[in-house]
Amino acid sequence: MVHKEKKTFYNLIQTLQKFWFNHGCIILQPLDISVGAGTFHHKTFFNVIGSQKISFAYVQPSRRPSDGRYMKNPNRLQHYYQFQVIIKPAPNTIQDIYLHSLQEIGIKDQENDIRFVEDNWKNPTLGASGLGWEVWLNGMEITQFTYFQQMGGLNCHPASVEITYGLERIAMHIQNKKNIYDIIWSKLNNKTITYSNLFYNDEKQNSYYNFDFSNTQLLSKLFNLHIQEASRLIEISISLSVPAYEHMLHAIHYFNLLDCKKILSTTERTDYILTIRSKIKKIAQKYVTNK
Amino acid sequence: MVHKEKKTFYNLIQTLQKFWFNHGCIILQPLDISVGAGTFHHKTFFNVIGSQKISFAYVQPSRRPSDGRYMKNPNRLQHYYQFQVIIKPAPNTIQDIYLHSLQEIGIKDQENDIRFVEDNWKNPTLGASGLGWEVWLNGMEITQFTYFQQMGGLNCHPASVEITYGLERIAMHIQNKKNIYDIIWSKLNNKTITYSNLFYNDEKQNSYYNFDFSNTQLLSKLFNLHIQEASRLIEISISLSVPAYEHMLHAIHYFNLLDCKKILSTTERTDYILTIRSKIKKIAQKYVTNK
Repeated sequence: MVHKEKKTFYNLIQTLQKFWFNHGCIILQPLDISVGAGTFHHKTFFNVIGSQKISFAYVQPSRRPSDGRYMKNPNRLQHYYQFQVIIKPAPNTIQDIYLHSLQEIGIKDQENDIRFVEDNWKNPTLGASGLGWEVWLNGMEITQFTYFQQMGGLNCHPASVEITYGLERIAMHIQNKKNIYDIIWSKLNNKTITYSNLFYNDEKQNSYYNFDFSNTQLLSKLFNLHIQEASRLIEISISLSVPAYEHMLHAIHYFNLLDCKKILSTTERTDYILTIRSKIKKIAQKYVTNK
Repeated sequence: MVHKEKKTFYNLIQTLQKFWFNHGCIILQPLDISVGAGTFHHKTFFNVIGSQKISFAYVQPSRRPSDGRYMKNPNRLQHYYQFQVIIKPAPNTIQDIYLHSLQEIGIKDQENDIRFVEDNWKNPTLGASGLGWEVWLNGMEITQFTYFQQMGGLNCHPASVEITYGLERIAMHIQNKKNIYDIIWSKLNNKTITYSNLFYNDEKQNSYYNFDFSNTQLLSKLFNLHIQEASRLIEISISLSVPAYEHMLHAIHYFNLLDCKKILSTTERTDYILTIRSKIKKIAQKYVTNK
């Protein structure tokens, strides 16, 4: 009974929160700004750059417009959930602790093929990079492990470890589902609530919006306005790194929306990324000097 | 020990989630768009309008720029957390269930003065209104109860009940703190993490940004662009109510940022609100006809 209930999406989140809380992590709430991955949460960005010890974890809704499939693909969504863990400094036993977390959610390493595949991750917009692994479960990537060497283009001392669980993929495995929309979110009074019940309409409408009906002129304009505003805030003498960073997150989201329409030339795309990276770097530099 | 641990902010959230889950609520994640209250989450807006039975609960980060106080006020923040419960149709025993939830988090009605004060709530931008109560705990408002009669300017059948817990105020009471920044978020390996540890810098920077350094021309421009985009999406024949509503949430946030600077005349302020309400109503109307 307990084991069965653990398998719902809701209980998967609860179990991971409890596990990482018991391993010394502060459990935070998601950021209320649309981002492409848990890494973009401002608590990760600023704490990975900073020098103090800290460990925390949270769920982050993640939007990747180009991954939308109008509900036709059993494995891809334009909006999904990541579970993000940041530990600083990284403990030596982190791989063992991670494997233990998989046991907790019902994935036994004796019964499955779990492989750590070397993957040196980088994110060009955030100016972030690190050594790490993808974790493969029976041939499907379920987690990204990264030891951050750089964030915002700055070297990180000490290095943090980031663990990003792909919650939907893990739920598909433990619930034995072939289609992401069949994932069971909750069981309530014998009523089963699926991912489809909750998100089918959102996925459909946002796929149409992202690919077919968004307004590229508006998106470019919003991108430019948020970049200009972030630039202005960076130049103000008191530190406004948090609001400046938040404007950058909006700009990045509008870039992702533009990018999914495949209308940017290679040069334009590179220009967008370089613009973002240079502003993010200035924010990081300002943060280390006066927060 | 268990009782003590229940008192941290993190465990307050966990306890409320478990309580409402046990009372048949789907536990959802916060919306990743900045809003002024839990009511604005799109799952509340669309489900309160719709006709099907549904019960759910979630935490929502809430931003009210005008409530910022540069960390100088022990009771006010420009960013805080609400715990939102929606049950549809509203059960007859909801007040008793609510009082039982207070017991669970350590507030006994025998030991405290808990009063239900009639308060017919309305939100002018969302076109939402309902009968309800504020719940006062020893003279401090800790919860808003609303039976929605209207949402998006449309009559609701059946009526949903909304319960909004002010998490920080409840935490101050159960932890016996006089200052919001002293709230204990978590206790980890004998280390105490306070609200101040996590949010002091964010509150400081966002108070400066909201009141002194935001760019009113930019905010007006962003407001207008999001309103225009929502209007365009409303006119498209296939239903894009979700992205249209999301653009409205951005517009409302920029209006809140403008409003906190006290630069709008009474007439301008009314015009902004009427513009928002009329678009929200169109989205609601379109949703009831074709989602």
